[in-house]
Amino acid sequence: MHKEKIKDIGEKELIRRIAKYMPCNQASDDCALIKTKKEDLLLNTDLMVENTHFNHKIISPRDIGWKAVVTNYSDLISSGCVEFIGVNIGLVLAPETEWQWVQELYEGFSEALNKFGGSILGGDCSKGENKIISITAIGLQSKLKLRRNACKPGDILLTTGFHGLSKLGLLIQTNKINIEEMNLSEELIDISINAFCRPTPKYNILKIILESSEFFINREIGCTDSSDGFYQAIFDLSNESKCKAVVDYPKLPKSYLWPKGDQWDKFYLYGGEDYELLISLPRDWADRLMQISNDIKEIGYFTTGNPNVEIKNYPNNSSLDNNSYSHF
Amino acid sequence: MHKEKIKDIGEKELIRRIAKYMPCNQASDDCALIKTKKEDLLLNTDLMVENTHFNHKIISPRDIGWKAVVTNYSDLISSGCVEFIGVNIGLVLAPETEWQWVQELYEGFSEALNKFGGSILGGDCSKGENKIISITAIGLQSKLKLRRNACKPGDILLTTGFHGLSKLGLLIQTNKINIEEMNLSEELIDISINAFCRPTPKYNILKIILESSEFFINREIGCTDSSDGFYQAIFDLSNESKCKAVVDYPKLPKSYLWPKGDQWDKFYLYGGEDYELLISLPRDWADRLMQISNDIKEIGYFTTGNPNVEIKNYPNNSSLDNNSYSHF
Repeated sequence: MHKEKIKDIGEKELIRRIAKYMPCNQASDDCALIKTKKEDLLLNTDLMVENTHFNHKIISPRDIGWKAVVTNYSDLISSGCVEFIGVNIGLVLAPETEWQWVQELYEGFSEALNKFGGSILGGDCSKGENKIISITAIGLQSKLKLRRNACKPGDILLTTGFHGLSKLGLLIQTNKINIEEMNLSEELIDISINAFCRPTPKYNILKIILESSEFFINREIGCTDSSDGFYQAIFDLSNESKCKAVVDYPKLPKSYLWPKGDQWDKFYLYGGEDYELLISLPRDWADRLMQISNDIKEIGYFTTGNPNVEIKNYPNNSSLDNNSYSHF
Repeated sequence: MHKEKIKDIGEKELIRRIAKYMPCNQASDDCALIKTKKEDLLLNTDLMVENTHFNHKIISPRDIGWKAVVTNYSDLISSGCVEFIGVNIGLVLAPETEWQWVQELYEGFSEALNKFGGSILGGDCSKGENKIISITAIGLQSKLKLRRNACKPGDILLTTGFHGLSKLGLLIQTNKINIEEMNLSEELIDISINAFCRPTPKYNILKIILESSEFFINREIGCTDSSDGFYQAIFDLSNESKCKAVVDYPKLPKSYLWPKGDQWDKFYLYGGEDYELLISLPRDWADRLMQISNDIKEIGYFTTGNPNVEIKNYPNNSSLDNNSYSHF
């Protein structure tokens, strides 16, 4: 047992073991909740590691900077952040790194911060063998709290946008897919590369969820982002909320450009890094939300039962286990 | 210019260039100040990188965990943190890392948090080629703000504890010093290794500075920690406060075990990682503070003049330029 390695136990088990060192009230969401006398804050850390999350062949430093902010802000958004305060940036660089790379990285950070709000608050730099960007973002918690563990049996499951595009973008950028052989349209190629390199977080969601609520409510609703993949996001909601999720496959919103087939379904379900949101709401609230925004679609519901994801009306018999990506 | 590398421009110039992307009110201290409606918070990020800050030959994972918390908390303390809320931990690990290493690291984090306050709030894990620990600590800002840029001409310069011990500990752990040839005492060896592996931040300082103040004061006083070295700390105070620091060499507090000589003075002045504090106070307040605590000593003063550090009564003629360590 003493020689047990991280690659043997895997990412989920690693996170489960590390969570034991944290106070039990913090476990459900990526963001930590910081209570102050008047306001509550959300704090979130995300790492981007060279050769794990990026390399110079697939994404520019400007896009890495943009995406690092977006990744963090998406976690704040999916906890119900009402205002972004900013980010602390820990940056590890090899001494051989060109200053221009760093400059473009910071221009990318700044572009995202100018667009979504908040500023660079502080940070640290250190020498290392590979580039690593560690961002900690901080924002204000809304009275309406979005939480993974707040889905209720009877709730409607909603999603924003399309899934799978970022995965396709990654495959194109790494030449792991033959775009000519597959006869992909220029438009699909463009939006996929953009989804991978320049994602947009759903920064407007809190506003429209509040707009669609009937009265002011100091409560919690179910939500998470799909950064770890569509299936994993729904599994996490189900697992943390201790109820069963049922997804109706024909309802999954897809770009009209998205090809059909088992492989494309797998990109959709397990791709990751789309930064769309999965939301759980009572029927009437869900209906009002969909009336306000055309980009939000009903895809299923929660019901009593053991935590699990059932995908109804799936077109073929391939197994739909959770094939989500593990870093280790 | 396009091919200019980080190792060519050095750490200070890198930080100066990066600071241009930050709002100008954040530049003086390591900590960022977060204003909320009722309370102000302090946010600080510090990185510990394998083969830059640590390796398995010189420090145990438990001590790395302890020290990573201390490094961050020391920055919060030197900005006037009245209560530690906790830390977010970004952890990069090679897949070959043993779980036991991670477990002992988290036990080290927990030991420090149990001792000084706060808890693990959240974080992120990722695969990488080397181990990296990125900690972001958060705490409450006291009404009495400690700031690098708040030293005033006429102020007395005070220091806590001894300097140079951590550097000696590092040299012993890396076998870069021959302890037998140098005839170092067992006690000096022990306290030096302890200073390097298990430093204690000056977590009590705010309490005794407030105790020694004559009345409640919503103001700023000059302070920084000596994590980058004694000389660098005083230089930073001088530079940020736009006045000259004068240090009287014979007043420097030293352990009775500390040998004499030029080399030992250099360890003292430029060693780093001691986590002692340099404090600047008006004469009467400084006197009251020294009456309360025997560990705080007067070592010089600030005066009008260009930012600089003058060391008076230095025993020999060696140059006392700033030889502080640069990571790049």
